[in-house]
Formats: sequence, structure tokens, C-alpha cells
Amino acid sequence: MVTKTLVNHCLSTSYDQIPQEVKLHGKRSLLNWMGVAIGASTHPSIDMLLEVTKDLKTAEQASIFGREEKVDLLMAALINGTSSHIFDYDDTHLDTIHHPSGPVAPVVFALGEHLGLSGEEILHAFILGCEAELRIANAVYPSHYQLGWHITSTTGVFGAAIAAGILLKLDREQLTWALGIAGTQSSGLREVFGTMTKPFHPGKAAQNGLLAALLAKKGFTSSEQILEAKRGFANVLAPEHDLEKVNVLWGEDWELLKNSFKPYACGIVLHPSIDACIYLQSRVSPEDLQSIELKVHPYVLELTGKETPQTGLEGKFSVYFTAAIAFLDGDASERQYTDEKVKNEKVLEMQKKISITIDEAIKEEEVEVTAILKDGSEITHKVEHAKGSIQNPMQEKELLAKFSSLVEGNLGKSSSDSMANFLLHLDEYPSIAKLILMNQKNKVLSK
Amino acid sequence: MVTKTLVNHCLSTSYDQIPQEVKLHGKRSLLNWMGVAIGASTHPSIDMLLEVTKDLKTAEQASIFGREEKVDLLMAALINGTSSHIFDYDDTHLDTIHHPSGPVAPVVFALGEHLGLSGEEILHAFILGCEAELRIANAVYPSHYQLGWHITSTTGVFGAAIAAGILLKLDREQLTWALGIAGTQSSGLREVFGTMTKPFHPGKAAQNGLLAALLAKKGFTSSEQILEAKRGFANVLAPEHDLEKVNVLWGEDWELLKNSFKPYACGIVLHPSIDACIYLQSRVSPEDLQSIELKVHPYVLELTGKETPQTGLEGKFSVYFTAAIAFLDGDASERQYTDEKVKNEKVLEMQKKISITIDEAIKEEEVEVTAILKDGSEITHKVEHAKGSIQNPMQEKELLAKFSSLVEGNLGKSSSDSMANFLLHLDEYPSIAKLILMNQKNKVLSK
Repeated sequence: MVTKTLVNHCLSTSYDQIPQEVKLHGKRSLLNWMGVAIGASTHPSIDMLLEVTKDLKTAEQASIFGREEKVDLLMAALINGTSSHIFDYDDTHLDTIHHPSGPVAPVVFALGEHLGLSGEEILHAFILGCEAELRIANAVYPSHYQLGWHITSTTGVFGAAIAAGILLKLDREQLTWALGIAGTQSSGLREVFGTMTKPFHPGKAAQNGLLAALLAKKGFTSSEQILEAKRGFANVLAPEHDLEKVNVLWGEDWELLKNSFKPYACGIVLHPSIDACIYLQSRVSPEDLQSIELKVHPYVLELTGKETPQTGLEGKFSVYFTAAIAFLDGDASERQYTDEKVKNEKVLEMQKKISITIDEAIKEEEVEVTAILKDGSEITHKVEHAKGSIQNPMQEKELLAKFSSLVEGNLGKSSSDSMANFLLHLDEYPSIAKLILMNQKNKVLSK
Repeated sequence: MVTKTLVNHCLSTSYDQIPQEVKLHGKRSLLNWMGVAIGASTHPSIDMLLEVTKDLKTAEQASIFGREEKVDLLMAALINGTSSHIFDYDDTHLDTIHHPSGPVAPVVFALGEHLGLSGEEILHAFILGCEAELRIANAVYPSHYQLGWHITSTTGVFGAAIAAGILLKLDREQLTWALGIAGTQSSGLREVFGTMTKPFHPGKAAQNGLLAALLAKKGFTSSEQILEAKRGFANVLAPEHDLEKVNVLWGEDWELLKNSFKPYACGIVLHPSIDACIYLQSRVSPEDLQSIELKVHPYVLELTGKETPQTGLEGKFSVYFTAAIAFLDGDASERQYTDEKVKNEKVLEMQKKISITIDEAIKEEEVEVTAILKDGSEITHKVEHAKGSIQNPMQEKELLAKFSSLVEGNLGKSSSDSMANFLLHLDEYPSIAKLILMNQKNKVLSK
């Protein structure tokens, strides 16, 4: 009954029943998502996806954020979802290393634009879609992730289907089928990390989940127990799992509140190390430094162990490069992760001074750093909760600054400011038509 | 190097290097595939898929076989691939319970129509796509299937990508990426068997594989070792596997030659039981029969153990219903698997007389039957190789009769005959434009 209970929960949770703080966090999640999507929208991989839609002559149904093109619903979900994950700068549910907005937000915006839905409807579906996928992620983490599945897309496809299903007004049976159709498309292997295909995952999950809901709406039948069946999602994709977690304390606990926003443009696993190196930067000048030793959680080397990255993208999977630029520049934004930077002599020199030690006792959100200076003295520092974590969250002001830094370059300041303002008041608007109009260079709109 | 070696093999195998008998079997596979696709093309699930494409306003790039609609390349791959698996009447590679044409044929026909390719090009890509997916299936069967994966779609996505990649003239690097993009979309859970979502699997594999090749052609990067990497396809989706099987004896052994065609409109696992019951039908009249006991391979109850199917579709997953109609009607074609038939009193009465015993010593292609008559006498019979198996294959005449029986109802006799003739000489035609013209009701064409 896990699947059916989840469907019942989603369909019986009205917008009014969602706590204020969850709605606020939902809007901030969408703000953060839109920023990273627009920021990466001119990336070559987005050009390639759009070239394919051009070859396919898709209809102009929904916008690509940060660009002028419109494509059909399914392709908009794919492309905006991909775009938002390119910089590895999107949101993270730290308990499961899940990026919840990626598979869900592109679906609610595509349907919202196409069907002329209200901001409240969009936010409502978004929150429930995220809640569903995160609870499913809780149920299969960590064995599922450790086996090699990219949990964002494998569970995200359910979130996308739930969100789409709510907006398409599916009934209980249809939404159950939508989850069946979604679950049997669940996919995404961690092997492709470090290539253009990683960000493709949340996009594909969005597209597959949306297709599932579109089909279920027409009456397309599927399993009614995709999560819990013997050959269903959990048993096949997760060596260990606890499906109790899917429905426990529904409406009381909100997983979306555990969604965090990244201050740095790389995997969350590197953030404590970046904080530590930025801390050192203000205390040690490069000339005085002999070496930096970082004691880290095992995931750091597993996920970001690349010793000599060859591209900016690969730099995001290198703790050595990342620690080096954090110490040299005091930051780890998109400006640091460039193809030039990974070849920079000074950075390469600095990388040699970084050593990493795995320590099982160190938690994922922690790091211990020791800087050894040329004069033999040492500076040690422990980061307990990286910036951007739940305990040390980004403030709204910081989120707005992150949004501007990502959006202004593509759309200009006036569009950027208007969009941010719109998104933080999303549920007050009867339609998102205005938001779509702002998705142009230097658009000024009266409120 | 498994992935790269496979790519090298596919790109270095010219049409001339393929043995004559493989080409012939390839054409027969396409004939069989087209028949089942057209036969099921008016199924409600195809109507639903087409309604979705209508909502999406897809471009008219490629034909839906058996119907008038044209849709874009990706949707054509999805819909024709789905159609061909609806009747559970398509081809089967018995060693892996794989239906090789399903994910590959819709891709080569969609691209062939859209790009104006020759019959030889289409057949070439089809054969290599099937060969690749079947070899990958060999490498992961049976653990992969037993875990709950629908091997047709999970490995079929690679075949689709290879076939599309060859037709799109990808270079080695691009085709390797295409396999990466394809593999990370690998999906399809056996839990959905018995619903409309089962036939959706080969369609989705076709669509995903085609998308992978379209993207790789634009330069979309991905893993270059998706099959063998630590977190790649085999390690994540198959508890046990032997990747040696992917490339062994390439060009000498042809897995496609092991592709068999079904004389009956249900899973191959039931065919020995059907043969046995048809055997009994000619020897015992229903009035004299007390009971039928079938000793079967364990898969029979695992896959088709439904005791009281409620729909014709569910009937295909019931050895009880299937044995009953085979004994009563002497056949198990689409005409038997109807919603009326599963409610029929006489059939229900007959089902009660069927008992099934699992016997580990019985092979998948075997069955032992004992009929107990009311007068106390017994008739026993052993089926060693079901009709349609490699050892007891359907002849070309029988294949042509199967094609007509599936196609004439939708397109009429003249179109049916012309299409069959075209497909058996596919590689002689400089384009498939004529075949596409035949995809209309009662079309008469001069040669």
C-alpha cells in the first residue's frame, strides 16, 4: 500500500494545509533553481539539446529559461532540468545527496506556462512533488546511491510525475498509474558524472515523469504498487531499503525544509573543504604556506578524487583543484571553474601542496584542516557545518545575490531583479505569464 | 575496453561482411516486427500515445505503422516500438527472453523514412543494433532479469543507440558517448507486466536510444565505458555478469540467428504448454476430459501464474487460461485473448481442469503433459521444442501467413501483400518511400 498511500497523501494535501515556512522554503527553492538554470542556459550542452529540438521541429509550448527559444512541454522539462544541474550549483537535500528541484521545477513551470496556471497551483505541486521524491530517496538511501544510482533522477522521476499529476488533475487511480509509468523509467548512473550526461539526469527525470502523468491522464494503465512490489522500484534498485519512510509523519515532517542551497558551484561534498580553505586564506599568505592537509569524509575522494582535472567541469570533481582555488581566490563560484583556471600555473603549483586524508570519523558536513607554514608553525581549524548547510544556511539576501550573479549576465539586471521578486511572491500571482515575459534581456515590467 | 571494443566492432562491420543467412533472418525479423506493430496499432494504448503527441503538436516526420498519423522522430520510435510489443507476439531471443526488434526496428524505420535512407542501410543498422543488444543481454542474463529488469528495454536502449548511431554516421567517439547516454537511461521493471506499460518499454528504449544518438551527434559528451565501469550498466543492474560475452567471436557468431518468431500471441514461456494442449485437442474431446496436468519450468508460474485473468491482456499472463483456450480452440492467437473469452463460461470451466506442477528438471522450451480422461485412461506427451523455437522454427510461409493475419484487418490485403514482399527484399530498394506509401488502407502499387 506504500504507493497508494503516497498518492492519497499527495492528493489530499491542500495548499492551505502546507505550513507557511514550507511555502517560503519552496519559493526560495524555486528562486535558487531558476538562478542556476538561467546561469547555465548558454552552456554548449543546452545549445546541443536545442539543436535536437530544432531538428525535431517541436512546437513552441514552453520557455527555456535564460533563452529566447520555446519548445514543446516534454523538451522544456528536459532542457530546463538539465540546465539547472550543469553548474552543480543547485539545491541539495543533504540526508540523501539529492537535488530536489531539478526534476520537479521544470515540470511545474512548463505546465504552468502552457496551461496558464496560478502561482499557487505551481508552488503547491512543486512542494508535494519534492516531498514525494525526497521521502522515496530517504527510503532507499544510502544503499541505492552507493550501488551507483544517481538518486536525484531515479527518485526524481516520481516527484516529477506527482507534480505533473497534480497540475493535470489526475484522480487517484491515474496518479497511481503515473507513478508506475514513472518508476519503470527510473534511471541515471553515477558513471556519467563529470560529463554532460550528469546534468541530463534531472532533465530526463522531469521529462519522463511528465510523460508518465500525460499518459496516465489518457487512461494508460500501469502497476499500482511500483514502489513496494517484489519487482518494483525499491526491491530492484536498492539492496537495502525501508519503505516506511515514504509515508511516515506525512504533513508533520517536511523533507523540503531540509533542502539547502549551495554557496559554491560544485558538489556539496566539497563545501566544508572550501570553507576551511577560505578560512585559511584570510590567515596565511600563499608565500608562507608549506602545505594544507584536509581530513575528510570518505565520499570526498570517492566523488571528487580527480587529481589533475583537464576542464573547468572536471575541476568540480577535484578536491585538489577546488581546495587550491578556494585558498587562492577565497571563493568557488562559476568564475573559478574554468578551463583556463585548471591549466593555471599558480593553481597547479598550489594543488601540489594539498593532501587529503580519509577519516571515517569525519561527517559529511565536516572537515578538519591543518595548514603547515614554511616557518614550521601550524594552523588547525575544524568546520562543523559548511556554509549552506541546514545549520548554517544561506540567508535570503545571499540567495538573492547568488541569483543576480547567475542571471544578470544573461538577462540583465532589470529582468533579474523582477524575476527574483516574482518568485519570492509566486503564490500571489494568478498566472506566471508575467514571469515568462521577464525571461528576456533587460525586460522592465510594471508590477 | 568493452564499450569501446563494441563500438569498434559495430563501426567496422560493413554490410558486405554480414553473412547472407543473417541478412535473411534480419529481413524476416523486420517482417515479423512490422506485422505485430501494425496488428496492434489500433489498440487503445496507441490511441492514448497519439493523443499525447497531438497535445504536444509534434511535427510530421515519421509514420506510425498501421495508421495515418505521422509524428516526430522520437515519438515515432516510442509509439511503433510500443505497438510491436502489445500483443506479446513479437520475436524472442530465447537464451535471454529478449525481444530484439522492438527497440531497434522503430528507430531504423523512423530515421530511414525521415532521412530517405536505402533498404540496405536500414537493414545493416538493424542487424548490428540487434547484435549489440543481444550480446549485452547475454552478458547480464539471467541475474539481471531475475532481479526484476525487463531485459528487452534495459539492453535494447543500447541496440537502439547503435542502430541510430550507424544511420546518423556517428564517429567512434560519438558512438561511444551515445552508448553512455543510452546506458544511463536504461530502465524497465518487470513489475509493470500485465499493464499497458509493459509494451511501453521497448518503445521507450527505442526513443531513449535514438535521443542518445541524436545528442552524441551534436557533441554531447558522456562516459566512454558505460558497460564495464564500476558504476556502469553491468555492475549496477546485474548482480552477476560476464562482459566477455559482449565482444566474443564478433562476426563469427551471430546472436540474431537465434532470434525466433512466435506462432502464439503470448509470452514464449507458454508456447510449450500451448503445443501440448493443441496436441491433446486432436486426441481428446472436451466431454471425455477429466483434467490436464502440465509439468513446467519454474518461469511458467512466475511469469504467467494469474489464476483468474479479468481481461484478454491478463489472459496472456495466465497459463490456466492459455492452456484452456489452446485445448478448446486449438490456437492461441489474438482472437483468443479477448475480454469476452476470459469471462466465457466454457473457458472458465475448462480452466478448473488445468493443474500446473513446477519441475526444475524441465527446460524452458519443454513441457510434459498428462491428460486424465473420465474413463480413467491417461494420455501423456512431451514437447521438447515448442513450435517457433530455433529447433522447430516457423517457416517463411508461416511467417507470411502470420503477417497477413495481423495486417490485413488494418490495411487490407493489397497493402499487406505489398509490404510483406517489400520487407523480404528490403535491401534491394534504394529508399523505403514505397514501403511508407503502402502504409495505407488497400494501397495498390506497381513494383
